[in-house]
Amino acid sequence: MKPIQVGLLGIGTVGSGTFNVLQRNQEEIQRRAGRGIEITMVADLDVARAQSIVGPDVKVVNDARAVIANPDIDIVIELIGGYGIARALVLEAIAAGKHVVTANKALLAVHGTEIFAAASAKGVMVAFEAAVAGGIPIIKALREGLTANRIQWIAGIINGTTNFILSEMRDKGLDFDVVLKEAQRLGYAEADPTFDIEGVDAAHKATLMSAIAFGIPVQFDKAYVEGITKLGAADIRYAEQLGYRIKLLGITKRTDKGVELRVHPSLVPAKRLIANVEGAMNAVVVNGDAVGTTLYYGKGAGSEPTASAVIADLVDITRLHTADPLNRVPHLAFQPDAMSDAVVLPMSEVVTSYYLRLRVADQAGVLAQVTGLLAGAGVSIDAVLQREADEVGGEGATSTDLIILTHDTREGTMNDVIAQMQGLPSVLAPITRIRKEELN
Amino acid sequence: MKPIQVGLLGIGTVGSGTFNVLQRNQEEIQRRAGRGIEITMVADLDVARAQSIVGPDVKVVNDARAVIANPDIDIVIELIGGYGIARALVLEAIAAGKHVVTANKALLAVHGTEIFAAASAKGVMVAFEAAVAGGIPIIKALREGLTANRIQWIAGIINGTTNFILSEMRDKGLDFDVVLKEAQRLGYAEADPTFDIEGVDAAHKATLMSAIAFGIPVQFDKAYVEGITKLGAADIRYAEQLGYRIKLLGITKRTDKGVELRVHPSLVPAKRLIANVEGAMNAVVVNGDAVGTTLYYGKGAGSEPTASAVIADLVDITRLHTADPLNRVPHLAFQPDAMSDAVVLPMSEVVTSYYLRLRVADQAGVLAQVTGLLAGAGVSIDAVLQREADEVGGEGATSTDLIILTHDTREGTMNDVIAQMQGLPSVLAPITRIRKEELN
Repeated sequence: MKPIQVGLLGIGTVGSGTFNVLQRNQEEIQRRAGRGIEITMVADLDVARAQSIVGPDVKVVNDARAVIANPDIDIVIELIGGYGIARALVLEAIAAGKHVVTANKALLAVHGTEIFAAASAKGVMVAFEAAVAGGIPIIKALREGLTANRIQWIAGIINGTTNFILSEMRDKGLDFDVVLKEAQRLGYAEADPTFDIEGVDAAHKATLMSAIAFGIPVQFDKAYVEGITKLGAADIRYAEQLGYRIKLLGITKRTDKGVELRVHPSLVPAKRLIANVEGAMNAVVVNGDAVGTTLYYGKGAGSEPTASAVIADLVDITRLHTADPLNRVPHLAFQPDAMSDAVVLPMSEVVTSYYLRLRVADQAGVLAQVTGLLAGAGVSIDAVLQREADEVGGEGATSTDLIILTHDTREGTMNDVIAQMQGLPSVLAPITRIRKEELN
Repeated sequence: MKPIQVGLLGIGTVGSGTFNVLQRNQEEIQRRAGRGIEITMVADLDVARAQSIVGPDVKVVNDARAVIANPDIDIVIELIGGYGIARALVLEAIAAGKHVVTANKALLAVHGTEIFAAASAKGVMVAFEAAVAGGIPIIKALREGLTANRIQWIAGIINGTTNFILSEMRDKGLDFDVVLKEAQRLGYAEADPTFDIEGVDAAHKATLMSAIAFGIPVQFDKAYVEGITKLGAADIRYAEQLGYRIKLLGITKRTDKGVELRVHPSLVPAKRLIANVEGAMNAVVVNGDAVGTTLYYGKGAGSEPTASAVIADLVDITRLHTADPLNRVPHLAFQPDAMSDAVVLPMSEVVTSYYLRLRVADQAGVLAQVTGLLAGAGVSIDAVLQREADEVGGEGATSTDLIILTHDTREGTMNDVIAQMQGLPSVLAPITRIRKEELN
């Protein structure tokens, strides 16, 4: 049988990894797929560089539309990234009847509804395993492996840059700014690291997992997004003393009122496997009502790990493209006519527990004032850690850190109490609040 | 559309879990599968008990062949277990044109070649996600999620009973026999625990993973199988001091000479995630040339976790049964006409590293004798741990434990050296040898 012909839009890190792995493991992949899979055409603005990667046998053009227009191409891989031209090209490829494979989480988290509808109408597949957690087959696990379950929640370390930074901060006791520079030097963080360190990249991925888990449309605009830029070495140390590690988690959870969708730093019990995922590695924990807690771990980025996911999608399409479109795996796990209208909750309605750090005057009655406010709002306390006083300024004036772990509380309630505590004269600095997840 | 009708053979723990989860999550599963999935007929020797589980709307018979003969049944679930009647019934169901879902690792590890060939000839699917690692979708990850990769090796904690026993031995410093009794009392070990504690169950599962990873036929008879019954509390303690934990691993590895397939206790660096998998939980580490190291973790047994895998197979079949059989996912990941003839290596050809514990006389020159024999055989030493002498018997005669970690060595060579060391007069007891895997 004639090989499946693939056109590649954009040959950067992941694109060249995809080309190289497809070449290197050509025979093994064909034995699995039942048919050869070949990249026969590449579009890239830098034609000369692209040609040097793929060699003389592959046609290289600088116009992506020439790839889409090529009637011999069965599948288009989009690795351009971003929401702009990538959106137009994916929609054009679908309109031309091509199956699409993409690693573009930003595009799908924002424009997924439009793109999946277009693909369904045209009877083609849009596959995106590489968009979440790189080489870990987490989309497949959620969409096919756990279909028996009412999924209850997902919590994932789905951004390697921030996990590398947090691991280094903890290991070396350094502050965020110092480690970020180191991460940039080592290539773990980009020159403009905003999307990573502010949690946007993780939120794109959490949005996709949320849609698949709960059968809701992608709703990136409803996600709560908080990054790691304000984390201090002190909080990591205190968390450690209390038996927790701090990780940037993408979380989505089913509740009676709606779906939680949020990205923020979280305290996680140190004994959980996910708390021990270090460096740039990714891991996703999924809890289903039948299976219980499962975890998936691996490299979340990089040339060949991401290529592994792109090629798995190519093999899936090769195996399934002759199937009746209605009997393929639905893009978002649930059939398009069976989506849920569950709402994504505003952050103020989320219920979780909290780590609070207050810089307080070292004087009698402060703990009573603070705990009195918490009690008044119905917030119950799990643990208190009061550090020895240390001097700030002269004249014997001293201050100290007061750490409080709470039980489950509505975020809106917690916001109110924090505002009240912040107004106490004995509270000397802005209160640090980090959410806490038990993940059991 | 009419629901897919499923017949269930054997309604014990997993069968009733499957029935209950299918009922409870009926609506959610249908929204994913695009079609209802219903167990409409059950065969069990205890008809009254079975009827009380499934209620009056499901037909219960005591003759499995009546289920297979029912023309309304699309899929047969085999949960009887064992090699005997289960084999006959699976082959009859295939011959009757039914798709089959089974959790029966023993059956497939021994008779898989015959069963998969019959299924391929008839154009039906035999799905077996539940046969390995319970609710963890590891078959799907290997067969579909990692298709881009030349898989290099797999190492898994794939038997919950033995992992529970090893965790308890380490936690409480107890010996094997004591913990086994406790495990039996708690229901983690069966009355006859032989298949678990001797490694046979793990070897069935490793055999299936090996076939899928490397495209070789199932060859349980070639697997090296060693259980945990001879492990002492002392070895667990020494391993800990050296930075390792002892786990019963199912291992399969690609080498230039052939495929390694082996189950035995293994030292694993304590810092690896898999070393921290405790209690009855399962985890599988898979290393592929593109993706690197990935890990999959969850409950490996139990009613609903196993049901989760059985039902995922039902959904897969529901989604795929209209597809051209040649375009479905191959039973063993590779197309039947593209299997490999790589041989499974005899254990003597396996290369790994070793932990050796020698009970030696506490006298000058013993270490030199022992290390001299190792050097003579070309075995290089990674670490030595010599314990303080303790008295055995009177007259000031003392003996001590000498622990040696080696670098990679051929097992056959190691067998020869161990025999030589055993012959030394200063070696006072049978030498303990445990293999060591770095898994990085």
